[in-house]
Amino acid sequence: MIPRYSRPEMTAIWEPATKFRIWYEIEAHAGDAMADLGVIPRENADAVWKAKDVEFDVARIDEIEAVTKHDVIAFLTHLAEHVGSDQARFVHQGMTSSDVLDTTFNVQLTRAADLLIADMERVLTALKARAIEHKDTVRIGRSHGIHAEPTTMGLTFARFYAEMDRGLERLRNARDEIATGAISGAVGTFANVDPRVEEHVCAKMGLKPEPISTQVIPRDRHAMFFATLGVIASSMENIATEIRHMQRTEVLEAEEFFSKGQKGSSAMPHKRNPVLTENLTGLARLVRMSVVPAMENVTLWHERDISHSSVERAIGPDTTVTLDFALNRLAGVIEKLVIYPETMLNNMNKFRGLVMSQRVLLALTQAGVSREDAYRLVQRNAMRVWEQGADFKTELLADTDVTAALTPEQIEEKFDLGYHTKHVDTIFARVFG
Amino acid sequence: MIPRYSRPEMTAIWEPATKFRIWYEIEAHAGDAMADLGVIPRENADAVWKAKDVEFDVARIDEIEAVTKHDVIAFLTHLAEHVGSDQARFVHQGMTSSDVLDTTFNVQLTRAADLLIADMERVLTALKARAIEHKDTVRIGRSHGIHAEPTTMGLTFARFYAEMDRGLERLRNARDEIATGAISGAVGTFANVDPRVEEHVCAKMGLKPEPISTQVIPRDRHAMFFATLGVIASSMENIATEIRHMQRTEVLEAEEFFSKGQKGSSAMPHKRNPVLTENLTGLARLVRMSVVPAMENVTLWHERDISHSSVERAIGPDTTVTLDFALNRLAGVIEKLVIYPETMLNNMNKFRGLVMSQRVLLALTQAGVSREDAYRLVQRNAMRVWEQGADFKTELLADTDVTAALTPEQIEEKFDLGYHTKHVDTIFARVFG
Amino acid sequence: MIPRYSRPEMTAIWEPATKFRIWYEIEAHAGDAMADLGVIPRENADAVWKAKDVEFDVARIDEIEAVTKHDVIAFLTHLAEHVGSDQARFVHQGMTSSDVLDTTFNVQLTRAADLLIADMERVLTALKARAIEHKDTVRIGRSHGIHAEPTTMGLTFARFYAEMDRGLERLRNARDEIATGAISGAVGTFANVDPRVEEHVCAKMGLKPEPISTQVIPRDRHAMFFATLGVIASSMENIATEIRHMQRTEVLEAEEFFSKGQKGSSAMPHKRNPVLTENLTGLARLVRMSVVPAMENVTLWHERDISHSSVERAIGPDTTVTLDFALNRLAGVIEKLVIYPETMLNNMNKFRGLVMSQRVLLALTQAGVSREDAYRLVQRNAMRVWEQGADFKTELLADTDVTAALTPEQIEEKFDLGYHTKHVDTIFARVFG
Amino acid sequence: MIPRYSRPEMTAIWEPATKFRIWYEIEAHAGDAMADLGVIPRENADAVWKAKDVEFDVARIDEIEAVTKHDVIAFLTHLAEHVGSDQARFVHQGMTSSDVLDTTFNVQLTRAADLLIADMERVLTALKARAIEHKDTVRIGRSHGIHAEPTTMGLTFARFYAEMDRGLERLRNARDEIATGAISGAVGTFANVDPRVEEHVCAKMGLKPEPISTQVIPRDRHAMFFATLGVIASSMENIATEIRHMQRTEVLEAEEFFSKGQKGSSAMPHKRNPVLTENLTGLARLVRMSVVPAMENVTLWHERDISHSSVERAIGPDTTVTLDFALNRLAGVIEKLVIYPETMLNNMNKFRGLVMSQRVLLALTQAGVSREDAYRLVQRNAMRVWEQGADFKTELLADTDVTAALTPEQIEEKFDLGYHTKHVDTIFARVFG
Repeated sequence: MIPRYSRPEMTAIWEPATKFRIWYEIEAHAGDAMADLGVIPRENADAVWKAKDVEFDVARIDEIEAVTKHDVIAFLTHLAEHVGSDQARFVHQGMTSSDVLDTTFNVQLTRAADLLIADMERVLTALKARAIEHKDTVRIGRSHGIHAEPTTMGLTFARFYAEMDRGLERLRNARDEIATGAISGAVGTFANVDPRVEEHVCAKMGLKPEPISTQVIPRDRHAMFFATLGVIASSMENIATEIRHMQRTEVLEAEEFFSKGQKGSSAMPHKRNPVLTENLTGLARLVRMSVVPAMENVTLWHERDISHSSVERAIGPDTTVTLDFALNRLAGVIEKLVIYPETMLNNMNKFRGLVMSQRVLLALTQAGVSREDAYRLVQRNAMRVWEQGADFKTELLADTDVTAALTPEQIEEKFDLGYHTKHVDTIFARVFG
Repeated sequence: MIPRYSRPEMTAIWEPATKFRIWYEIEAHAGDAMADLGVIPRENADAVWKAKDVEFDVARIDEIEAVTKHDVIAFLTHLAEHVGSDQARFVHQGMTSSDVLDTTFNVQLTRAADLLIADMERVLTALKARAIEHKDTVRIGRSHGIHAEPTTMGLTFARFYAEMDRGLERLRNARDEIATGAISGAVGTFANVDPRVEEHVCAKMGLKPEPISTQVIPRDRHAMFFATLGVIASSMENIATEIRHMQRTEVLEAEEFFSKGQKGSSAMPHKRNPVLTENLTGLARLVRMSVVPAMENVTLWHERDISHSSVERAIGPDTTVTLDFALNRLAGVIEKLVIYPETMLNNMNKFRGLVMSQRVLLALTQAGVSREDAYRLVQRNAMRVWEQGADFKTELLADTDVTAALTPEQIEEKFDLGYHTKHVDTIFARVFG
Repeated sequence: MIPRYSRPEMTAIWEPATKFRIWYEIEAHAGDAMADLGVIPRENADAVWKAKDVEFDVARIDEIEAVTKHDVIAFLTHLAEHVGSDQARFVHQGMTSSDVLDTTFNVQLTRAADLLIADMERVLTALKARAIEHKDTVRIGRSHGIHAEPTTMGLTFARFYAEMDRGLERLRNARDEIATGAISGAVGTFANVDPRVEEHVCAKMGLKPEPISTQVIPRDRHAMFFATLGVIASSMENIATEIRHMQRTEVLEAEEFFSKGQKGSSAMPHKRNPVLTENLTGLARLVRMSVVPAMENVTLWHERDISHSSVERAIGPDTTVTLDFALNRLAGVIEKLVIYPETMLNNMNKFRGLVMSQRVLLALTQAGVSREDAYRLVQRNAMRVWEQGADFKTELLADTDVTAALTPEQIEEKFDLGYHTKHVDTIFARVFG
Repeated sequence: MIPRYSRPEMTAIWEPATKFRIWYEIEAHAGDAMADLGVIPRENADAVWKAKDVEFDVARIDEIEAVTKHDVIAFLTHLAEHVGSDQARFVHQGMTSSDVLDTTFNVQLTRAADLLIADMERVLTALKARAIEHKDTVRIGRSHGIHAEPTTMGLTFARFYAEMDRGLERLRNARDEIATGAISGAVGTFANVDPRVEEHVCAKMGLKPEPISTQVIPRDRHAMFFATLGVIASSMENIATEIRHMQRTEVLEAEEFFSKGQKGSSAMPHKRNPVLTENLTGLARLVRMSVVPAMENVTLWHERDISHSSVERAIGPDTTVTLDFALNRLAGVIEKLVIYPETMLNNMNKFRGLVMSQRVLLALTQAGVSREDAYRLVQRNAMRVWEQGADFKTELLADTDVTAALTPEQIEEKFDLGYHTKHVDTIFARVFG
């Protein structure tokens, strides 16, 4: 977790204080359920809630842990300092540390997912607004980095919207998958704790009970969670790369927002670097790198080994914090992206009409010219454009072999941009409903 | 794709003949739609269907491609040889190669997913049967590879069932995500082909129209598909690893099926190797290795570049073929796994009752013995078991300090396995409904 | 292994016939060593060499394997058909299958490395030739995709040369690391075979004896091998990406070679796609994807498990074949790359002299103008270039505040390209010696 | 970077104060070189050294950066506060930020490598000591987790030594590869800074000059660095997995050290978990996850983009800190590993002599018994061991068909462990010289 790539909303989820608060809630709710079942006295269960408004002292817990060498015991000892050690003596009864730790981790991941869902919604809002704004802003479509046929900037935003919207749906699935808790004991048999305790705690913590756990919650859920973040990060990189391409000097169809006052920019107006989207490209790699370790974590020996733990201590916070930061940065970039429609037209016309050569070729053959002849006709005019910088339409209109097959109006029509944008509304309706 | 790790059902999906067949169907259905729209003559559309029962000649198409250097044109040329080149002249009109190629790839992935779904169902059936069979077969649960508390073999199968059932659900999602097609032209604007053609073709091919495509179908769908296969493979490795552990000489709680007649096994009865599950461990890595490249494929330059293509030529077939083979192998291993309940009991009793020491410790404190004393009592008896091979229960019953706190019946009760299995039915009900 | 991305030189290494040939040589050399040690009769050792010129019948061996279910035994049986089963009865004595299999795999990887070394040398030759050819071809250097300062095309080639030369050095190390063999028996103790047999066989096969093996050769060697190929593939992608950028329509400083006769290109001269380098980008991903599984393969249970085997059956051939093909494709692309020096100059001058603004700013301050004033002076002239398309130098020469600080000669000098290229020879001497 | 998995020696390398110190040294040495070249006044160069003993104020630099939005400028501003802004005015002249940043990063990686080299040496020392200690401690070798033939614990340590020794050699190569610096300006042409400045600074900082750089040092060097760490981590996991297996309850041939006083361990002596080696397994994944992003970082657009930067901010510290911690933990585990030779013998004899069945089979055939008969003889005795727990040797000696072929002495000899350990010294000589 790198401070400069972090937002406090997300880092807060991973702070020790938050963790201890969740531990506390799990223990307190478990106490309630045990009291309801008659396993422990009601008054002891109630007593735990006395600490409801306490901010646990992280330094004090660390101090105790230095002695006990066990984090959960250290916390319970500290809790007893607030609740009274006699009152607290039934806390955690029949539970194992993993009951608390694993359920807490999933609470954190679920909350992280909720933030990421909000981030995605912000990205979607920005993409939709820019799509509508530039629905009819024509620019050249490119395959292989080479001019192909006209499209519109709005379609570019719309497809990123559709892609991110799929990402949001996947994220919602991943969130639901990870929102489980388990309080099932040392090997998952509920030997020392009633399954109804698990049910109560999960209901209170916004989780579903894990149908079958061992000492731990199965890690395929986590693998799916991080895999999903990896896919979303890849889509983010896709958008970032488009913007980086648009901003490169020779293209310059868009620029990341650059505040007027920003020094350097106006003495070197050509040197405004797409550093935010370059950064997003790198952040995507960081998010993605958690995917394979999360998958390697799925295999545990028998009812659990602890190999997954160190991995999760790192990727749990790092990956969610990085993606949260990145999605917000992405949203900001999209919201404020400076777009140059005029340059788009200039770029499209770089080879004065040549992008229409295929339409002309088709028109000639449809007008009855043989394929070979049509090809030859287009070629000789195209080469004058390519080599001498002539204008393609002008050349065609001046070529009597061409005008023998096509009327000036027909030729003119082949250069009509409306031909390419006629279905934009249809596509928008598909994407935005 | 390695022949020995392949099943013909899956490899068939990826054969050239299948690919050409799908290409044909797409072109023929597209022709129908165009005829309905009045874009091409009905009779030309109908003529294409004359080739309905043709098995296309792959060698002939390759021969043509050697000249044209273009696979789709080569196929269309060959198609014209069947349909008649005049009749065929409207085939593919207004479409780009990617319309056919990308839609075909998704048809193949969808069919591959259907096979994988069936594979998963076979695995689930096997797991369920064995879970029910061994619902009450007690064995020791282990954390960190170390004996913890008793559980049952049925619970092990049940949790693998639950995990694979989640995998199946994820696979169904992935299948739905990948089941889209696109016939939208060079940059996705439908400039030369009506969106209704796409709708018709997709309906006929069992796909949904891609709401917005460029020259290609967006690759986040494919990334999600391969990520999902990676998670399933990881769960498979989890199961395989459990079996490998069970079969190791010192544990020997289960063995992969070994046919009676198999030479070598009876002269060296101790040397039966879990080679199938070891193999599954390796195959899981092969499936997983497609995940990152599939994610790297998401980023394409502008309306498409072709960097993704070579990756997909490899991972499309390789990953689905490998996982299909592996899941079937896994199902077979589970179906026929030889289980040794007696060894399970022997293993559990290796340290004669010691796994119950925690329950005894708890009972002593609940009986009013101080924590320190209870610990000391358990310790001195436990050490006799550990160091001298004594029987824990016998020692406890002979220790007057222990019997001062607990009756023989109470001590006896702590060694009751029923204590650990009392919620097995509850868990089974959660998993199997 | 995809046929279209394969060269016969490399695929030959991985053919069954090659494998059997290596098996044969290992067995025959082992026999020699055993005879020298007096372990087996000399005549039996000699008899094996009768098969020296035999081309083993792969179909026949497969047929036997279908019965024996064991590949090495099948081969030995077939060998006995050539040598005579009495003569052959000491073949393989005291050895385990893995002795043959692992040593063979390393022979194959070593040979594959030799081909890759030759490939790298071809790439280096091409890069060096083009570097020298374009040593002084000035083009704009870009950071963040934005024009920065002038550099030369030769420097671009030279840095790719230096990078690939490091790759070659790494590859040589990896080759040496993998060039070991082991004939040490079931758990590596040489219980049934003398270490001198291993030494003899390795010497004959061009390998070093593995200092300590178990049943298998340790897999960290293989992990390092595939990691090295992954780094080389990444460098290849770096070069490919540069070319893809250079070819994009708006830049067009270079194009992959396109034969004059190639249809389509001249009727659509703007539509020449960098499909080879796009392909190389994808192939780099395929090479890279073997790295993590190869690392996962390092961990084996005790003296061996067979989880690594399926992984290696795939990545052994696939990765070496793909990289071999890719490096040759890369060499071809570089050798024939069409370079447009004139476009380079045009691109550099897109914002008429503006890339020199920083030098002018520096010159003004060095001439005693305050930073603030210098900045203001540069800015006002730069903005006329940026917004009105004026020429920067002309503007500066006409700005009396500027000329008050700098003479026309001094201003002129700031636009001298020689300033940027003065150390090219120094750098070339560093790279090419 | 997770505090609990960190050692201060390594984290110190990555602290802001260290970074600023390196920046300072680079700038000061660069000043010296420029003064020697007559580019700046000697006194200004000398003046910079006034700050030689200054501990730079990180908070103050952050404060300035909050205004300037540029880290290097913030540092230079702060430096001027110490040196005097007039004296400092030539600092950094002609250099770009990347000259400082990239060279600093490589200084840090080189120092990190030096620590890792020392770590590896500690691991090697421990492995060697334990190898010698247990050179003759016999235990069963296992393939596929199944008993195969006897080996010794010393051989296990020796092979880990050999593997880690290769790792050390690779690490030294990686260190040398990364130990380069570059001071070559905005696009690497040395336009504004003489190459001799780079040479001087590099010599002073313990680096070699990068033969050809752009704005940045080429990232293939870094990819190789992290790939090497990934291979080492994989070897570490290999060792950790061996220990985890040895400690599992049913095997119990070794245990991680557990201090006598450690509570819990003596009341539950069976429950000592290999948590350190499990942790190392997870840490290996964390180290390995940096490999692919480091390879993705190799491709930069033209003379640089900044996509690599965020990746390196994470993996630079995280990966080196994690591996440094892990290697020290590993060394400690090996140094103090508690080994149980008696259990090793017990495990080996689990199936009373059965592991020798293959030797007996061989002896019978060498004594002239036909393969079929020999097999039948071994089988009938082996099955009595397997099914009834008889002793294999006793059974053989009592089987008159066996004793007809082999004398009691010959049978006895087949059970001699010395047969398996006779080449241990040879192997040790290979490994340790």
